[in-house]
Amino acid sequence: MQSDIEIANAAVLRPVREVAEETLSIAEEHLVPYGHHKAKVDIGYLSSLVDRPLGKLVLVTAISPTPPGEGKTTTTVGLTDALHGLGHRTVACLREPSMGPVFGMKGGAAGGGFSQVVPMSDINLHFTGDFAAIAAANNLLAALIDNHVHHGNELDIDVRSVTWKRVLDTNDRALREVVVAMGGHANGFPREDGFDIVVASELMAIFCLTESWGDLKRRIGDIVIGYTRAMVPVTARELGADGAMSVLLRDALAPNLVQTLGGAPAFVHGGPFANIAHGCSSVMATRAGLRLADIVVTEAGFGADLGAEKFVDIKCRKSGLRPDVAVVVATVRALKYHGGVALADLGTEDIGAVEAGMANLRRHLANIRNVYGIPAVVAVNRFPTDTDAEVARVVELVADEGVRAFPATHFADGGPGATALAEGVLATLAEPSPYEFSFTYDDDLPLTAKVEAIATRLYGAGQVTWEAKARRRLQRIEKDGFGGLPVCVAKTQYSFSTDPTSLGAPSGHELHVREVRLSAGAGFVVVVCGDMMTMPGLPRDPSAARIDLAEDGTIIGLS
Amino acid sequence: MQSDIEIANAAVLRPVREVAEETLSIAEEHLVPYGHHKAKVDIGYLSSLVDRPLGKLVLVTAISPTPPGEGKTTTTVGLTDALHGLGHRTVACLREPSMGPVFGMKGGAAGGGFSQVVPMSDINLHFTGDFAAIAAANNLLAALIDNHVHHGNELDIDVRSVTWKRVLDTNDRALREVVVAMGGHANGFPREDGFDIVVASELMAIFCLTESWGDLKRRIGDIVIGYTRAMVPVTARELGADGAMSVLLRDALAPNLVQTLGGAPAFVHGGPFANIAHGCSSVMATRAGLRLADIVVTEAGFGADLGAEKFVDIKCRKSGLRPDVAVVVATVRALKYHGGVALADLGTEDIGAVEAGMANLRRHLANIRNVYGIPAVVAVNRFPTDTDAEVARVVELVADEGVRAFPATHFADGGPGATALAEGVLATLAEPSPYEFSFTYDDDLPLTAKVEAIATRLYGAGQVTWEAKARRRLQRIEKDGFGGLPVCVAKTQYSFSTDPTSLGAPSGHELHVREVRLSAGAGFVVVVCGDMMTMPGLPRDPSAARIDLAEDGTIIGLS
Repeated sequence: MQSDIEIANAAVLRPVREVAEETLSIAEEHLVPYGHHKAKVDIGYLSSLVDRPLGKLVLVTAISPTPPGEGKTTTTVGLTDALHGLGHRTVACLREPSMGPVFGMKGGAAGGGFSQVVPMSDINLHFTGDFAAIAAANNLLAALIDNHVHHGNELDIDVRSVTWKRVLDTNDRALREVVVAMGGHANGFPREDGFDIVVASELMAIFCLTESWGDLKRRIGDIVIGYTRAMVPVTARELGADGAMSVLLRDALAPNLVQTLGGAPAFVHGGPFANIAHGCSSVMATRAGLRLADIVVTEAGFGADLGAEKFVDIKCRKSGLRPDVAVVVATVRALKYHGGVALADLGTEDIGAVEAGMANLRRHLANIRNVYGIPAVVAVNRFPTDTDAEVARVVELVADEGVRAFPATHFADGGPGATALAEGVLATLAEPSPYEFSFTYDDDLPLTAKVEAIATRLYGAGQVTWEAKARRRLQRIEKDGFGGLPVCVAKTQYSFSTDPTSLGAPSGHELHVREVRLSAGAGFVVVVCGDMMTMPGLPRDPSAARIDLAEDGTIIGLS
Repeated sequence: MQSDIEIANAAVLRPVREVAEETLSIAEEHLVPYGHHKAKVDIGYLSSLVDRPLGKLVLVTAISPTPPGEGKTTTTVGLTDALHGLGHRTVACLREPSMGPVFGMKGGAAGGGFSQVVPMSDINLHFTGDFAAIAAANNLLAALIDNHVHHGNELDIDVRSVTWKRVLDTNDRALREVVVAMGGHANGFPREDGFDIVVASELMAIFCLTESWGDLKRRIGDIVIGYTRAMVPVTARELGADGAMSVLLRDALAPNLVQTLGGAPAFVHGGPFANIAHGCSSVMATRAGLRLADIVVTEAGFGADLGAEKFVDIKCRKSGLRPDVAVVVATVRALKYHGGVALADLGTEDIGAVEAGMANLRRHLANIRNVYGIPAVVAVNRFPTDTDAEVARVVELVADEGVRAFPATHFADGGPGATALAEGVLATLAEPSPYEFSFTYDDDLPLTAKVEAIATRLYGAGQVTWEAKARRRLQRIEKDGFGGLPVCVAKTQYSFSTDPTSLGAPSGHELHVREVRLSAGAGFVVVVCGDMMTMPGLPRDPSAARIDLAEDGTIIGLS
């Protein structure tokens, strides 16, 4: 089979203005083109749609993944293409890829095989400049902080307490921990600092939760950058940064429209990390999609314990959006992995391991239906090594849970490979839901109780324990009036526990909270359980060395 | 009078595709739109024009400026509009503004008054993403350097010798001198490092001197990032960075087309500093302009001793481009300043000071005609406080030098205010040049002799002296085979000497070289005389605090 970029480069793309007009009835005048195959949809136009009825919202989530991933983005695109092929006005809402992994190890993130969004290389590189705009706004605030301290520090900022970091969209471990303002008087007051990758920034989370220009400025103003020496929170508003930062994000806030290989429209907009942030594409794009199409297919990062939980408890809680159905991507490989098979042996048939691994999927299905209250459908994303017997067994096991499962081959076949899945989704959308949508916890619970609700209701944990420092930080956050915020748990995506090797459906384990961070602008409290990488490094042999530009401008080696 | 942004916002812009078609006969299919008023011109299309005859090249340069500047960009735009108004197919080629000064003190850089390029706020902010692309490519190389050292340092890079810095397009003094890779084993080997502003980067200079995608990759590969412990230069090519960096700059390399307030086309592309780099917009844009128009009006940074010298000795030498006429922007204010009047008193009539200050302009005119061998015309850019008697005296004094001077009011009046200037330029272009174009020095002179040629022939200096460290560095550079490169002098723009308070036309002074830097990819050796700021700071009251976004998306306070 061809590589992703070979498939993408071989595709004949239609001008995005035609895609916009024919699939979503957006007139050309409402598009801001970025080349011929990417466009932003004018925010003023989107505001004019406020009275339109909303379409149906399909959330694509997953089993706890194996390290290579189970194909959530690919399934989102394949399902969109299948629904589009069946004549339903459908749009995909995806996250924008970070350039860090593109030049590192993981590669791009625009789907795969015959289920991709295109133009693939544009989307994986600078795209429409959103990440650069977020970095510029983020780093302007950082410069304003050190500048304020340099010029007399009227606010009495305690530089030891500054939590606002600088960002780049590059994998660069050397920037994780730095000392800035060295070199004497003219360069300011030295302090410890660090850089995160753009997608790990609070500003990226803010960007993705924002509903309008006014809301953007308000959220940015609410950012707490650190504390005074008297331990009073200092905001971006007090530094006079909110206006200028909003100006830098003005254009970026409009959703980016591209197309799938199957000719369906796709919004690719925003890309927050799913650990330190909520891991969903922008509210601006989801809402635009719901007003422009009958069905929106969107994805949340990692497994349903992380991405879907944050989709529900953060994105839905803040925006009022409600998913109508959850598509849970499962693979024979992941089930066998949870059933005890080593990564290297996942290509060998093992029905028993599939059955054992079902414990993981079973818990996710229970959480989605009984905790979040969303009807579920399982997509069995087929890999070439899956046997028919294994796939059939998955369908049976899922049926035993009262859930329909649909094998899908959209990676190899594009939209037609996901037609059965699409029909299953349509059938579920047509039925009244037997569940009632619900959050995992209420706003007015104490922050500790919110974490406990997630740990015990979703993860199967026995107890939550706290590092002393984390508990003190939490108390400070509640004392400062942020106790009503939802929590954003950062933990490994490979397990319901904090131990990535504890597969299946562990129970009674301890959830240990190492660290707590306030994201006052985004509007949540990050609860760190385990290691959290907010600035990746490059591997020994980075992809960068294989990526090349031919003299005629052809891009080589992007994956 | 209205502010720049009020004038710009009040202008009714035409779609850039119409401007391209009507003014330069570029069909829409050759444009890559960025919104409706900015476009890149396809590089493949530009390559297809290789056999077209070249138009005339007008270089706008200036007297040694006062701190607020003499209006070189404004004059470039005004002259373009005047030529356009007279029916000549004319295009302006300008530098892209940096966002650092926009949020700091200086403000934007897209002309002023009724001689601006528009859309003003777009051009002054992210524009088409060129600077973000340059930053991404620059910082990828930096990450690859530290990554190489971290993973075993096969090339035996001496981290103490690494000269490749990271960059941001932000004024941020705290990043001038930093220590990176703190925090232990996982984060690499700690070392001293620093950030420059994007416009001060070698990659920006490379970008602006590049002629094609192949040339871009070759130049990037040639970058020397530092030395091995055996003092052998290490290149970006050896780190496998040249391909990926070129991919990141692939689209940015296409010139950006916008319009002037007078409806003329303008390429705004690239923006290297005029001290550490050569201070001219891109060769790609200049050459495109010369093939598409009959007249290209472009500018070089600072006064004619710096910008025009580098235009001639670096940009023209490397590209083969040749200016047909130099327009020297002079102001009554600057002449009085050089004649001894304090900045605060420049609004008071003083014919004697104008006469005394003429020494400065006289030397620039001599250099342009007798050293560079370019015919000159003087533009007297009128300010409201200039008296008619002062302006008349400038015209007479310039006439005494055998040069025509034309008062111009394009700031207040747009193109019609520069019609006489335009007619003077046309008359000069129509005459055979009495001069022969020439460089200040030959390639095969030793580097020291090149600096001496500039110092004695152009600056009136008596001698060149060298810091011991600078001389050793120069010897190393020659030993490594870079002695054939041109030099790029970094010194104050306010004086022919290195003392910014030594106005007029000082003679016999000493040019002291403090430092020498190699820009092997750009292809020159930077000779630092005096302080050189490569990362500005923010002022006590930065513009950022006055820039705001209204709820309806209107940008407020940009200047």
